[in-house]
Amino acid sequence: MLAYSCFFLLQLQPLSRKTIAKDENDEAPDVLVIIIERVENLASNFAYKNTRDIEFILEEWLPSDDIFSLPRFKDNYSKSDIKPILNTVRKIAKELWEPTYDDADKNPARLQDGKVVAPPSYKALYDKMQAEGWGTSNIDPAEDAVILPELIFSACREMFHASNTDFNTYIALTTKGTDIIIRYASARVKNIFVPRLLSGEWSAGMALTESGAGSDVGDLLSKAYPTEDPDIFKIKGQKVFITGSGHPLTENHVHLFLARVEGAKPGTEGLSLFVLPELWPNEDGTLEDNDVVITSVEHKMGLKGQATCGFSVGDNNNCRAFLLGMNPLHNDGKGDGIKVMFNLMNSARAGLCLQVTGMAANAMYNSRDYAKERIQGRNSKGERVPIIQHADIKRGLLLQKAVIEALRAFTYLGHYYVDMIKHHPDPEVRKDMDIRLSVITPLLKAYSTDELWNLVSEAIQIYGGYGYCEDYPVSHIARDSKILSIYEGTNFIQSMDLVGRKMTMQKGAPFREFIKEIEDFIETNRTAEGFSKEFEVMGKAIDDYKIILKFVMNHLAEKRMDIIWVYSKRILTATAQLFAGKCLLDQALLANQKISDLGEEHHDYNFYLGKVASAKFFVCNIVPNIGYVADVLKIGDTSVLDIPLEAFDF
Amino acid sequence: MLAYSCFFLLQLQPLSRKTIAKDENDEAPDVLVIIIERVENLASNFAYKNTRDIEFILEEWLPSDDIFSLPRFKDNYSKSDIKPILNTVRKIAKELWEPTYDDADKNPARLQDGKVVAPPSYKALYDKMQAEGWGTSNIDPAEDAVILPELIFSACREMFHASNTDFNTYIALTTKGTDIIIRYASARVKNIFVPRLLSGEWSAGMALTESGAGSDVGDLLSKAYPTEDPDIFKIKGQKVFITGSGHPLTENHVHLFLARVEGAKPGTEGLSLFVLPELWPNEDGTLEDNDVVITSVEHKMGLKGQATCGFSVGDNNNCRAFLLGMNPLHNDGKGDGIKVMFNLMNSARAGLCLQVTGMAANAMYNSRDYAKERIQGRNSKGERVPIIQHADIKRGLLLQKAVIEALRAFTYLGHYYVDMIKHHPDPEVRKDMDIRLSVITPLLKAYSTDELWNLVSEAIQIYGGYGYCEDYPVSHIARDSKILSIYEGTNFIQSMDLVGRKMTMQKGAPFREFIKEIEDFIETNRTAEGFSKEFEVMGKAIDDYKIILKFVMNHLAEKRMDIIWVYSKRILTATAQLFAGKCLLDQALLANQKISDLGEEHHDYNFYLGKVASAKFFVCNIVPNIGYVADVLKIGDTSVLDIPLEAFDF
Repeated sequence: MLAYSCFFLLQLQPLSRKTIAKDENDEAPDVLVIIIERVENLASNFAYKNTRDIEFILEEWLPSDDIFSLPRFKDNYSKSDIKPILNTVRKIAKELWEPTYDDADKNPARLQDGKVVAPPSYKALYDKMQAEGWGTSNIDPAEDAVILPELIFSACREMFHASNTDFNTYIALTTKGTDIIIRYASARVKNIFVPRLLSGEWSAGMALTESGAGSDVGDLLSKAYPTEDPDIFKIKGQKVFITGSGHPLTENHVHLFLARVEGAKPGTEGLSLFVLPELWPNEDGTLEDNDVVITSVEHKMGLKGQATCGFSVGDNNNCRAFLLGMNPLHNDGKGDGIKVMFNLMNSARAGLCLQVTGMAANAMYNSRDYAKERIQGRNSKGERVPIIQHADIKRGLLLQKAVIEALRAFTYLGHYYVDMIKHHPDPEVRKDMDIRLSVITPLLKAYSTDELWNLVSEAIQIYGGYGYCEDYPVSHIARDSKILSIYEGTNFIQSMDLVGRKMTMQKGAPFREFIKEIEDFIETNRTAEGFSKEFEVMGKAIDDYKIILKFVMNHLAEKRMDIIWVYSKRILTATAQLFAGKCLLDQALLANQKISDLGEEHHDYNFYLGKVASAKFFVCNIVPNIGYVADVLKIGDTSVLDIPLEAFDF
Repeated sequence: MLAYSCFFLLQLQPLSRKTIAKDENDEAPDVLVIIIERVENLASNFAYKNTRDIEFILEEWLPSDDIFSLPRFKDNYSKSDIKPILNTVRKIAKELWEPTYDDADKNPARLQDGKVVAPPSYKALYDKMQAEGWGTSNIDPAEDAVILPELIFSACREMFHASNTDFNTYIALTTKGTDIIIRYASARVKNIFVPRLLSGEWSAGMALTESGAGSDVGDLLSKAYPTEDPDIFKIKGQKVFITGSGHPLTENHVHLFLARVEGAKPGTEGLSLFVLPELWPNEDGTLEDNDVVITSVEHKMGLKGQATCGFSVGDNNNCRAFLLGMNPLHNDGKGDGIKVMFNLMNSARAGLCLQVTGMAANAMYNSRDYAKERIQGRNSKGERVPIIQHADIKRGLLLQKAVIEALRAFTYLGHYYVDMIKHHPDPEVRKDMDIRLSVITPLLKAYSTDELWNLVSEAIQIYGGYGYCEDYPVSHIARDSKILSIYEGTNFIQSMDLVGRKMTMQKGAPFREFIKEIEDFIETNRTAEGFSKEFEVMGKAIDDYKIILKFVMNHLAEKRMDIIWVYSKRILTATAQLFAGKCLLDQALLANQKISDLGEEHHDYNFYLGKVASAKFFVCNIVPNIGYVADVLKIGDTSVLDIPLEAFDF
């Protein structure tokens, strides 16, 4: 039986926007008191023992000095700040965040008397984190604000996702919404909203989806009507699947709301984005009802602490919102809504890869800890041993480790690009980085979120029957994971983006360059000692990949998009695996060099051996899938197109 | 908001052991009243619109006349009985079973005051089904009992699993336990237990696992001590993960309990199986406490209506059980426990493939129905269309359909073998069938349960965000599914069984025969009209598979089991895919013949087209994975063996 046992109380001073700014006038942070009912056999477990692989990426693999030397950061940060920040965040994730993860399952968000109720532990944690600037440490627009580079901020967020991805969504959506307002809103709107969002008093989120308009956002029905104030419109509409909306963690909640101004063009080009607060801020600073009614909170498979809401606005013709960008009525009926969304898409999708990395890594670390403890079976000498010594358990762990390290490489590279795009003084560099990020974005989003389901399954399998019990964290992670392949553009849409847009943009030049860099890398390192087998596999993979590209190009030329869509998901996977093979081998070459430099006695020796093993495993066991995809395309089966719909009736 | 709306009341006379026996003295079955709180947006949905594919397998593909002409069945059944039985069962599954599936989630099994509480709707349904003989229609040992062939009984159970696999476990375990007692117990034990198990008054289950002895069952600690009665032993021990134990659906629950007689040999060979009732049956027919204490009910990711228990027996030295088989103390310390378990393993594992087929098919049928209704996106003419018209949705549906039809072929073939093994008069035929079933058993268990996780994921993806909501059944099916790759021998253990035992038994002759039959099939049909591409793919697959076999044989010769275990799971998958390609193409050739015979106007035309599409899709899109596995083995990476355990610390 569960026994409610104790309260716990934490006093911890995390790094924060304020403390980072080293403002000595700042008061010490309030004591945080999170009152939570802890249960025996606590299922939540943040199992990051260290952050060595993140440090390797940020300090050794990526040219992160490029970021630290940018004007925006050079006076405040250097590489030497990475480790202390990561250590602090690991402590916050363990001590403050971990205990709240179970709360999401035990006290799911729900609708009660028209109000959303969130897990009890979330409010205190939200206040703490936002007051300390953790949600906004990368976006504060004040010139003297000391902001964290995305690269480091992401490393913090990886651990937050690992510890409680459910809760982190509340913060991440506020970050995203605030960023949109900072970047695209007028001074008037910014003055009203930005200070309260940065302080954490208000929260923000995206309101795009409608019940009849999910993937096909251009079909949405929400309408906006001009008022006497040219900035303000009246809104009518219904939204669904609005994540982290209408919640009780903050005084007010601000929706970035997609609607069509009455009279604007149909389809996506007529859409506009509005800043729609649940409580309307009057000029005197008071708040009043803004005709927003939460109508439902979904019952989900996981992520139960997130309030995923449906709501209705303007039922009493009194919902007001600020237009963001051009008024379509003065712009040939065209709105800025989709343009704004597109501009944010790349970083948001790189963020999903980060979320996967945190969730999957935490599942892996937990399964590793279990495998070290659990005695079962015997070794060749007949001794009972921990299961981590068995070949199939090691295989399951190394598979997780290798794929996760590929995803971690992907997402930090993506966030490196984001920093450069946001802060590099040279517009040519910004443009180049933007294109590079665009090319890999669908890979980051879809490959990571597709793999997540399989990775967590490997973690559960290591636990055996215990993995199926909610007393261990892995089943919870599995339940949380399934939505990621769907939201932020389904993985099929990502594959359309890759094949239909990224491969062909600028007549295919950036994509060709992306592939050529992989090819050059293979050519350059073909004779690297200790990796001849792996580079041979990569060489064959490039040849196979060219068959895949030829298939795409031929069918594009024939305008046979129907055939391309049958295979585009597999093409995306093959592309991601090719790129992952390169990233991991590049890391392994570096690790191998360190091994020669530092010797076997160095405390990092096993870490570097692990990097080499990850790369070898990935290249030899996963990269050959590219040949499988090429074989399938050569066969070119069309049964998906040929089968009559009626045949599915049996 | 959910609104509890109505009760429902069903009067239905299912086929049953009694009605099948056509005993005219039988009373009409009682009116079944299931009282259940039905909620709006009922998530459970049994979506079998028909049973055409099952009929195809039983009536057209398999030589099921071989079964119907067996002495045990020939007076009672013929092929013409198949369709009426399936129709009745589909109705039972829809009307009686479907409403109980949600009950498992809403009212999970739990421990209350030392007693197990089950979902409220389960008791009435259990009584009904068992009284009607649905749990025992295949095992009644009475010579005049009209029993159902496994082949047909399985078809019924596929739909029960589809409708509520959680509930079906209660019945299936009783069937299995009763079967063991019928086959292996003494007349004394049978007289006490079998009538009450067949009538459904008592239930049965397996009690094997202990917290320190899961996959490694030989390490279990439960002990048995002789008493004055040579059939009766006193038992002491603790068990965990005992599925469907201690439940309130029946008056008494009988455990097939694995323990070691004090003084017997260590390891698996010293183990014995005991018939251990929770209430001890006195000779006067009364029942008394048997010192069995349920200590826990697990909180699981899914299958929440099943009571998965931990229990302790003999704490007061008063737990009695009947020994099943030889007393080890009179048999060189060897018990019959493992032998009995092994004898039942094949049919139990074929049963898991059946469970997967039902669960996955129901997920697929639901996603198909959703895809037909859901309007989203546009066709090439710019019209809004149901998503089933989009290429990627059709791909997801056809992938599910093709794999499920392969699994369905597997499991019915397996149950065909079971019937022959149990009932064929010629011992040579029985032996041959037993070997055939043994060879494919690990494929049936592991391939099906591995695929299930991916298949349900495809179904969820078709639903988009709605698939993640518990208002639709697919997320529930996903939660139920994850344990199947773990229980009844983990899928790695299955792969050890395939590679380490099935490939080599009788010096490899049966396995070579199994492969040769596939090869002959390809050779014979290489020129079949309309399938030249598919047989070419199969031809290459056989060549690739021989590379895989050579890898296995070489490493076996070198006694490098460590390397084999690194790859055995992938080898199992490749083996299953090769066999599935054969089964599906064999069905497609038959379907193609029917199309020529019957013409396009025949009502089965689309069904047969669908069979052809399934085979083509599977062979062209999935079978080439065998080449991928062969490539990986040729590379022969050993990083799993090389990596030091310490490298997993990062």
